[in-house]
Amino acid sequence: MKKIVNDPNQVVQDMLKGLVAAYPESLKQVPDTTVVVRKDAPVTNKVALVSGGGSGHEPAHAGYVGAGMLDAAVCGETFTSPTPDQVFEAIKAVDGSAGVFLVIKNYTGDVMNFEMAAELAEAEGIRVEKVIVNDDVAVEDSSFTTGRRGIAGTVFVHKIAGAKADKGGSLEEVKAVADKVVANVRSMGMALSPCTVPASGKPSFELAEDEMEIGIGIHGEPGIERKTIATADEIAEELTGKILEDMDYTSSEVAVMVNGLGSTPEMELFILNGKVQDILAEKGIKVYKTFVGEYMTSLEMAGCSVSLLKLDDELKELLDSESKAPAFRI
Amino acid sequence: MKKIVNDPNQVVQDMLKGLVAAYPESLKQVPDTTVVVRKDAPVTNKVALVSGGGSGHEPAHAGYVGAGMLDAAVCGETFTSPTPDQVFEAIKAVDGSAGVFLVIKNYTGDVMNFEMAAELAEAEGIRVEKVIVNDDVAVEDSSFTTGRRGIAGTVFVHKIAGAKADKGGSLEEVKAVADKVVANVRSMGMALSPCTVPASGKPSFELAEDEMEIGIGIHGEPGIERKTIATADEIAEELTGKILEDMDYTSSEVAVMVNGLGSTPEMELFILNGKVQDILAEKGIKVYKTFVGEYMTSLEMAGCSVSLLKLDDELKELLDSESKAPAFRI
Repeated sequence: MKKIVNDPNQVVQDMLKGLVAAYPESLKQVPDTTVVVRKDAPVTNKVALVSGGGSGHEPAHAGYVGAGMLDAAVCGETFTSPTPDQVFEAIKAVDGSAGVFLVIKNYTGDVMNFEMAAELAEAEGIRVEKVIVNDDVAVEDSSFTTGRRGIAGTVFVHKIAGAKADKGGSLEEVKAVADKVVANVRSMGMALSPCTVPASGKPSFELAEDEMEIGIGIHGEPGIERKTIATADEIAEELTGKILEDMDYTSSEVAVMVNGLGSTPEMELFILNGKVQDILAEKGIKVYKTFVGEYMTSLEMAGCSVSLLKLDDELKELLDSESKAPAFRI
Repeated sequence: MKKIVNDPNQVVQDMLKGLVAAYPESLKQVPDTTVVVRKDAPVTNKVALVSGGGSGHEPAHAGYVGAGMLDAAVCGETFTSPTPDQVFEAIKAVDGSAGVFLVIKNYTGDVMNFEMAAELAEAEGIRVEKVIVNDDVAVEDSSFTTGRRGIAGTVFVHKIAGAKADKGGSLEEVKAVADKVVANVRSMGMALSPCTVPASGKPSFELAEDEMEIGIGIHGEPGIERKTIATADEIAEELTGKILEDMDYTSSEVAVMVNGLGSTPEMELFILNGKVQDILAEKGIKVYKTFVGEYMTSLEMAGCSVSLLKLDDELKELLDSESKAPAFRI
């Protein structure tokens, strides 16, 4: 295993130390937890957003903590759901009396643990609502999920629901707009190589030298098909095509995210984006805004995902509004 | 070779298409060139900044084009200096009658070609000044360089000289502040794995499974030493220690950049940053601002660099001022 780490079993604690040290003006760690919150948390009378999940997807989720996005990120062990007590700590740390909104990626462990935390919070009189993100069109049910998985489209939920809360939206309004994003976002990914969880020390799966996997999950969960590596144009057609089959984007305006999974050079993401834009133009789908980069990674996995979010005026305004999160500055 | 590309000999043109398509509101490509400029170029009566070099270091350099940073980036073939005529096209495209300032990383080909372009421009009556960035403390003279190499510290030059020009600084004032950054920035890198230039199809060098290389260049040029992989803390001590030996940072305030070379997960960069911050605190060096992420990459090389910039009030103000560049939003 070639990694820049100290104790492979302490990578999350070590990461959080270095993360908070990098952004001391905007982030703080809740003592004795793996919870990162806004420096000014709790913000009184603002709906607070809490997300998180297993670590290894950086900058998700702690990089999205900041004014205009998340109030807290709960960082589980690598590729492992955070425990209910950690999520509960996050809820308590950010509750500003206007309610707490949970953004949960659809993995069985995450859903269970966030919901248990919500019950603990409600028992203490904190109002909690949630959305479960399931944007991955690749497969129904997989290793860690009943239904579809939540992947890079989750970042649009953070941004837009975070903006709604920042503008004074009520808990019900934040939930409504988060539901709207989830209803209108679809994603699909592929990988060229596996990644290695530090504590295991071994690659999570194997792919032959000429092979890629279409539809793979962000923890290496099986996708749709393994086949010979295709060109960037063919990969763009396959990922975008599957998304467009799943939802009717005719005459829509969309936000596009071309997301790198960890070790894919930005050069390749831009090459892919060129073809994605061509495909959308041919279909008469208008691109409002494009995001190319690493937003939801899988450690050093090589590969990418494409996400398309269908927009209306409300979503456009919230997407464009200011964010102070370290990994999503607008 | 596992890459998301079409024709390996067309990666730069394909990348530029996808890059400009991603940010059509802020970037445009000069037709029939590999030059990316601000959408509103030329900006009348503003000193224009031109940088660039071989491709494969994304987001450098085109991701730093935007108000407050560069006016143009000239994109050579992968790891290959752009030709003088391409640099000349960039200069002509952004000249707004206040002079053009070239930020050149110290590689023999880059220096020669940018200087030839400067002569062509001066022959047409365009005033040109330049700075040569040589922040890498690892080695004197190497594969492609006489003297020290220019690496991630170059991004500080883009940011600070770009801000000076944006605030109305004259060509002489922009040069003076760029020279000040170069005099006060030092960097040092290391790698865990090589990268593959698409057109060659083969890794640029080899490292054994338990080996790392200290002091390696951003094109895989030899460093100081190959040895068994160390812990993150030891790597932080080695990189930071060599920088602190090279310049006296006692009682200084600094900006820190912990830069990923391509496939190193952000988790590992933050782990490294935690120790870098400890080392600086122990030495009484005050950290003003920290940047952790991929700023100057080497395709999918695994590894990182640390840069330290000694700051004064002028540099702090310019570092903090607004930037609209896609890869450096402030």
